[in-house]
Amino acid sequence: MPSIFLRRFIVALVAVIIPVALPAGPSLGLPAEIVVSTRPTTGAFPLVAGDSSAPLWYDAVDWPGVIRAIRDLQEDIKRVTARQPVASAEHPTAPVVVIIGTLGRNAAIDALVASGKLDATDLRGKWESFVIATVAQPMPGVERALVIAGSDKRGTIYGIYELSEQLGVSPWYWWADVPPKKRAEAYVLPGRYASGEPVVRYRGIFLNDEAPCLTGWAKEKFGGLNSQFYTKVFELLLRLRANYLWPAMWDNAFNEDDPENPRLADEYGIVMGTSHHEPMMRAHKEWTRRREQYGNGKWNYATNSEAVQRFFREGIARNKAYENLVTVGMRGDGDEGMSSTGSIESDMKLIERIFTDQRRILAEEMRTDPTKVPQLWALFTEVQKFYEAGLRPPDDVTILWTDDNTGNLRRLPTADERKRSGGSGIYYHIDMHGGPFAYQWINTNPFPKIAEQMNLAAEYGATRIWIVNVGDLKPLELPIEFFLRLAWNPAALNKDQVAAYTRRWAERDFGPEHAAEIADLVGRYTKYNGWRKPELLAPETFSVLNFGEAERVEAAWRDVVERAEKLHAILPEKQRDAFFQLVLHPTKASAIVAEMNIAAGRNHLFAKQGRASANAAAARVRELFRQDQELSDAYNHQLAGGKWNHLMDQPHLGQFSWEPPRVNAMPAVSEILPADHDRFGVAIEGDVSAWPDHFGDAVLPVFDSFNPRRSYLEIFAEGTRPITFTVAALEPWIVLTEDKVPRLDRRFCVEIDWAKALEGASTGTITIEGNRGPIRIAVPIRKATPEQTRAATGHFASLDGPIAIAASAATTSTEVAGVRWEKVPDYGRVDAAMAIYPVTAASILPPAPAPTLEYPLYLPRAGTYEITLVLGPVMDFVPDRGMRLAVALDDQPPQVLDVFSDRTAETFLGAGWWQRFTRDNVRYVRSTHNIAAPGPHVFKLAMVDPAVVVQTIIISDQRLPESYFGPPHTPALR
Amino acid sequence: MPSIFLRRFIVALVAVIIPVALPAGPSLGLPAEIVVSTRPTTGAFPLVAGDSSAPLWYDAVDWPGVIRAIRDLQEDIKRVTARQPVASAEHPTAPVVVIIGTLGRNAAIDALVASGKLDATDLRGKWESFVIATVAQPMPGVERALVIAGSDKRGTIYGIYELSEQLGVSPWYWWADVPPKKRAEAYVLPGRYASGEPVVRYRGIFLNDEAPCLTGWAKEKFGGLNSQFYTKVFELLLRLRANYLWPAMWDNAFNEDDPENPRLADEYGIVMGTSHHEPMMRAHKEWTRRREQYGNGKWNYATNSEAVQRFFREGIARNKAYENLVTVGMRGDGDEGMSSTGSIESDMKLIERIFTDQRRILAEEMRTDPTKVPQLWALFTEVQKFYEAGLRPPDDVTILWTDDNTGNLRRLPTADERKRSGGSGIYYHIDMHGGPFAYQWINTNPFPKIAEQMNLAAEYGATRIWIVNVGDLKPLELPIEFFLRLAWNPAALNKDQVAAYTRRWAERDFGPEHAAEIADLVGRYTKYNGWRKPELLAPETFSVLNFGEAERVEAAWRDVVERAEKLHAILPEKQRDAFFQLVLHPTKASAIVAEMNIAAGRNHLFAKQGRASANAAAARVRELFRQDQELSDAYNHQLAGGKWNHLMDQPHLGQFSWEPPRVNAMPAVSEILPADHDRFGVAIEGDVSAWPDHFGDAVLPVFDSFNPRRSYLEIFAEGTRPITFTVAALEPWIVLTEDKVPRLDRRFCVEIDWAKALEGASTGTITIEGNRGPIRIAVPIRKATPEQTRAATGHFASLDGPIAIAASAATTSTEVAGVRWEKVPDYGRVDAAMAIYPVTAASILPPAPAPTLEYPLYLPRAGTYEITLVLGPVMDFVPDRGMRLAVALDDQPPQVLDVFSDRTAETFLGAGWWQRFTRDNVRYVRSTHNIAAPGPHVFKLAMVDPAVVVQTIIISDQRLPESYFGPPHTPALR
Repeated sequence: MPSIFLRRFIVALVAVIIPVALPAGPSLGLPAEIVVSTRPTTGAFPLVAGDSSAPLWYDAVDWPGVIRAIRDLQEDIKRVTARQPVASAEHPTAPVVVIIGTLGRNAAIDALVASGKLDATDLRGKWESFVIATVAQPMPGVERALVIAGSDKRGTIYGIYELSEQLGVSPWYWWADVPPKKRAEAYVLPGRYASGEPVVRYRGIFLNDEAPCLTGWAKEKFGGLNSQFYTKVFELLLRLRANYLWPAMWDNAFNEDDPENPRLADEYGIVMGTSHHEPMMRAHKEWTRRREQYGNGKWNYATNSEAVQRFFREGIARNKAYENLVTVGMRGDGDEGMSSTGSIESDMKLIERIFTDQRRILAEEMRTDPTKVPQLWALFTEVQKFYEAGLRPPDDVTILWTDDNTGNLRRLPTADERKRSGGSGIYYHIDMHGGPFAYQWINTNPFPKIAEQMNLAAEYGATRIWIVNVGDLKPLELPIEFFLRLAWNPAALNKDQVAAYTRRWAERDFGPEHAAEIADLVGRYTKYNGWRKPELLAPETFSVLNFGEAERVEAAWRDVVERAEKLHAILPEKQRDAFFQLVLHPTKASAIVAEMNIAAGRNHLFAKQGRASANAAAARVRELFRQDQELSDAYNHQLAGGKWNHLMDQPHLGQFSWEPPRVNAMPAVSEILPADHDRFGVAIEGDVSAWPDHFGDAVLPVFDSFNPRRSYLEIFAEGTRPITFTVAALEPWIVLTEDKVPRLDRRFCVEIDWAKALEGASTGTITIEGNRGPIRIAVPIRKATPEQTRAATGHFASLDGPIAIAASAATTSTEVAGVRWEKVPDYGRVDAAMAIYPVTAASILPPAPAPTLEYPLYLPRAGTYEITLVLGPVMDFVPDRGMRLAVALDDQPPQVLDVFSDRTAETFLGAGWWQRFTRDNVRYVRSTHNIAAPGPHVFKLAMVDPAVVVQTIIISDQRLPESYFGPPHTPALR
Repeated sequence: MPSIFLRRFIVALVAVIIPVALPAGPSLGLPAEIVVSTRPTTGAFPLVAGDSSAPLWYDAVDWPGVIRAIRDLQEDIKRVTARQPVASAEHPTAPVVVIIGTLGRNAAIDALVASGKLDATDLRGKWESFVIATVAQPMPGVERALVIAGSDKRGTIYGIYELSEQLGVSPWYWWADVPPKKRAEAYVLPGRYASGEPVVRYRGIFLNDEAPCLTGWAKEKFGGLNSQFYTKVFELLLRLRANYLWPAMWDNAFNEDDPENPRLADEYGIVMGTSHHEPMMRAHKEWTRRREQYGNGKWNYATNSEAVQRFFREGIARNKAYENLVTVGMRGDGDEGMSSTGSIESDMKLIERIFTDQRRILAEEMRTDPTKVPQLWALFTEVQKFYEAGLRPPDDVTILWTDDNTGNLRRLPTADERKRSGGSGIYYHIDMHGGPFAYQWINTNPFPKIAEQMNLAAEYGATRIWIVNVGDLKPLELPIEFFLRLAWNPAALNKDQVAAYTRRWAERDFGPEHAAEIADLVGRYTKYNGWRKPELLAPETFSVLNFGEAERVEAAWRDVVERAEKLHAILPEKQRDAFFQLVLHPTKASAIVAEMNIAAGRNHLFAKQGRASANAAAARVRELFRQDQELSDAYNHQLAGGKWNHLMDQPHLGQFSWEPPRVNAMPAVSEILPADHDRFGVAIEGDVSAWPDHFGDAVLPVFDSFNPRRSYLEIFAEGTRPITFTVAALEPWIVLTEDKVPRLDRRFCVEIDWAKALEGASTGTITIEGNRGPIRIAVPIRKATPEQTRAATGHFASLDGPIAIAASAATTSTEVAGVRWEKVPDYGRVDAAMAIYPVTAASILPPAPAPTLEYPLYLPRAGTYEITLVLGPVMDFVPDRGMRLAVALDDQPPQVLDVFSDRTAETFLGAGWWQRFTRDNVRYVRSTHNIAAPGPHVFKLAMVDPAVVVQTIIISDQRLPESYFGPPHTPALR
């Protein structure tokens, strides 16, 4: 047997080394291909060969959920090969048989184990594990068997779905219309594959904020969030190896809306819970719908505990027959904080009493030791403060830590907390209805960020439960699967494996031909949405004046849209629905919002400058606003024949509070009334003013021979008539060319012919003449001397302006005792950020030697420089420590900078946090440094605490022009 | 002779008491009518009687400017009566003669004085004084003479124009097309009238920032700012009894552009100067046009003093023959600060050297003692800091203090400074191109504010020069005349006389029939523009949510526009041009800008709320934007047959920096795309949210039986189809009526039938039902008990919300040693503000007894209240003192509040000042007060420093809803 099938996945907190170049397997569950063959090979198991399909044999005493999944496998084999195998509890007579079952519930499998033909060491006593193995002569009359054996119910089910996926049925075959990969025959390679146990015991999703989309859709398709709907969800979860669900709660009550819901969940194999604020298996809607039957009707344990207890007890009594993970504790009336009883001390006492009473109810209703009942206490928003103030749940209750609602973990367990028997878990968001802002429309979750944060959770031992808020479920297909796959084995999806994962995902769902392109597209659209979520874009977000920023953003979006549209056109018809919903729609929809805001920003600028083209920019905004609606309509009405109607009902334009907008509102645009004349005006890069009629001089940003760039001026009509003018440069070293890109006004690019320019500082002039003017534009330049060039070579160099360096461009990186700066590929705003690994490394304060990155600089002037570090928006998840770095210029003493030095403003719910960092998706720390002389210097960036992620370093002794990203990266001078 | 003609105006720093109810005279120069009669009466002088017109007799040796003015009088008499009198230096043979001349330059007048027939005591040695008197048998052969005798050239000219004005020729007959009042005959009443001397010696205007309007107009009409243009200006100034001019300088050089300019100025009688930054009678344009001929070409006394001296000397040599008031000192290159020489000390030394050199040049070129040459040093913007740091000009140089560029005096002379021989004056702005913002479009200057500030200047002795920046001259006709009339005799135009003045102005220019209405209209449009200048209005300035604020502002504007349009329609055709430019246009133009911004604010709100009507609000903005342009076009092209073309070229919409916008840009508006459905939504007063689909409850602002008011809810279509719904109140005490005012959506007014409501706090409900809902709106009320009502009667009372009191509604006012709080009628945002008189009273600090206002309060709760005083935006014009008030609740110790406690943020150029107070045209001071029990209290407001102007008092223990004006005034409970 090839060794690949013998390889076992060691699942543990510390990841094993995995070969970086995995074979591009068609499954996202296993890192190995077992159904590669469409031809018979030696020892391969003929699942479907010729006209025949191997029968599926199970044991009638196995879990109904297993037998139900076997029916899915029957269907899946038919979907792929058009041949449906027999599935039966009767011993088949065929020479080749697929034996499927759970250890201890399948006599044939137990016999194989007993006979030594099947190794069960990694099944016995294991959680949710399976083995897929070919067995020759498993029993008399059977030549060859394919065995799918599970350690328990879900283990077997996951094994079944693993085979389905490897055969070519995507977990998303229904939920995203991914067409099964057709094949005439299917052979399973000989060998044995073992899944191992999942790292995270409970892996689930929370359907939340399900109006208007999910509710409207489910009502139209199923008549509501009933068991027809939920069984679709259960099946999806199982195919994704998830096991846990918080059902929709906004205007729904899972257990009441359809009594089949909990029964079928249990049958399918889904562990049910209720959301963080709904204790004891009861939906809050069950309370609000008939609160008057409960005491004083107040959701208040201080004044109405008896009635609330009764409410709790009814929930446990109703659901006790099923597999549950019970939310305990209590928050306020609905998804909000508890009314205070007067002081935090008395509130904590009250919650302690609630814990005690809830445990008593669990014990009484379930007739068991309450420590045997899986429970969680979620520290969502204000709840965490009770914990931090000292309130502790019983040791066996899992503590569910949360993110900051935007994907940054607020807190991870300390070494002491890791000792708790209940362990801890994470409640994460890839969709939010609430503070700091709602993002419910589209997928804005780059994989690298999820991987970076959730690997922290794994490394710090928060692995009992991972549950992610997925809003309406669709269109978050990608991050849902990524999160759940990550939960199975975080170490297998660390920062260095994200790209390969995305590629495998694309290949699984769309085949190998365009997989690289598709992976790149989804990586890019999510990355761009990660810059700033579409709901938070404003006309002034990206600078239309400085650094070509808005145009660069526009170009990035246009590129991915064009590529996605091109692919859409050439993909086979049957793949287009899947491609549209998973790739083209989110790319294009996001791009439209970005372009709309940029066009509005341009409109605002052009109106201020008095350009007649301000009106054309406004018209462009209106056009894009209509396109946005048309694209939503296409999703709702045309995609898959209207199958997903309402799932694009979410308004997403014009958000002005934490809530999503009620309707889409176009970014406001101005207008001007151009008069009947032929006057022209001139605008330049970097200046909101226009000439003539502006008091100040027109001066282009300084040109620097160390960092050659092009600038521009634009000449525009102020009235309705065509304009005539001449543009001329007075110096031979000014290169003026008209831009070929079609724009609303005429742009002339300005570059410097450095060979012709004089060394040192000088200023040239461009003149524009016509029926007004002449208008003079100053062109200031700085050209390095040969001495300066020699001194600056190999350095990040400037003769005038700011220096922006990609953190990953360090020329030196020192490692200390195995702790080192590593690249985090594709993170945030950069190609690769830098962070410390292992992430659990101990903090190091200067003067102790720490892992250090060095950047050689060449600075233009003596004086005071401000250095800005652009960081990932990580939270200070280690209690009372902050998030620190040490920086120094040359051999000056290092300055320790703490991202959270202001614990009030910068931490969760702090004013600074709320207002800026979650929107920008970066944090900044700044330091000032004095240098006595211009020329070569070294910037040193040393670790203090791990988990700080550094994207960019900006060094400037002047105020930076307004922009979102700051100056573009400067390469080192060559 | 009736005593009225014997009354003498005593011109002095302290005003004489003038009867408040002046006869409504047709002249704004004299407070008495002398040409009332169109019929012969006993002793009256027949200026024009029957077919004959009394000849005008002057002396050929009189000033050419006097003789020139007599030709104007000839024309004026003809304009009025259609009969042109003879004017001649030959002794006329008629029995009635008008003798016009200057004491000492007219033999006939000198003879009358010598013979005792004309009393010259108030002419001899006086400045710019005149007497108009009827003299019987003045000389052989003449039965009766009308004598216009001047103390000096301008005295005589002012007398001539006084007669013109009283005859019915407005000073604005040409500049504002005010038609002469026709009469067949004109008799001058017998008697003698003496003008007295002006209080302010030099009274003038500064034509500034004259592009695009004045320049474009003058170029079209006269070919430039040449002597054809300037003689029109000179004549206007003389008719307004002004004598001083800073000519246009932005792109002009008065003395060079037309050499006739200075010669004719002198001939007419205008004292010429140059603006604050143009020393030694030279326009800065004379420098910039050929700076290369002057040394190193730098406008820098430190590096180029010899050349700059030459430039100075040429100016004095050129203009020395004329009457000048020479600007001395030096600022930067153009209207900006001087480049520093390194430190304030060295800069001061340099300016001292400049003074010395300039004086030497004056002495050498004029061959006189330089103390005999009138000179001024203007402390504009940064220049004042040199003075404050100790730099002093020679004692005979007038110090020209300035306002803050928005009409608030920065500094007034101290007692010591009043002793300077050169005295001091004021450079004031009613138009600004510069910081804190440009206002160059339309008249935004309420008379009461000018009167309040400039009377401070008079009372504090800054009376040597008053010069006002008038931008393009038009359309600032009203405040120009008001400022100049005030300069003649400030005490005659104090706060209590403004209304009568405005009325007299309206009667003079439009006749008595509509004078009251016209006076009210111009008072209102300027008051409303004084709330906030049109250039500074933004869609969010006035709250569309709270206190019905935007609607109240809209209603105020609509009322004046309707009234102005109605008047325009009924006025005689010949008055319409004048009425349009002086009343209708500024009213309507200002109203359009206010309404446009309010409509944009409504659009923004409606878009957020998801109202389909957001688009109608946007359409309204576009419509008003076009109306704005059409109205400017009407001014430029239709008014007076296009006579004033270009004077409405000033862009005024979309200002975003200190500069005016380059073109008008419409306030940005949003759009929504209403879908094809009939869903409705509900919005309520005070809440940006809308229902359904909003998380929070819908709760109307609390109703308070002490301050009954109406609230409202609005029901709107979200889609394109008509909506159907029902609205019902669940309690009988809720009175629901549909509003009859046509609006974009349906409004239901909510009032409380207090007789039916329960005492105390309760909450009712309004429900809206239809194809969604029911939507429930809470109606919280507070009804007073009889005991509360008894205790609160006579008090400014609240059961819940804030109390806002007009400062003028004090129930008690104590006077201390003649110092008292007085009403300042029609000031700022209120009907009357309160201020301390006399304004020169000494400061009083507690516990010394001070003039105190008392306001009885009834407060709803114990606890901490914030009291906000809404003040006039006066500056801290007394050095190092601040602007203080003392406040107290009940018998608590008074708190001394200083508007300028933060001297960095709040004074001129301070961050706070720049950002807010000049825009809002108010300042705030706040104090907090604790009370132990609800119920009756007294708020006491005591003087500390004079000149603080108090408009409104707001008392609240809660955060106030967003609004511009704050809560409307609460009347005392009756």
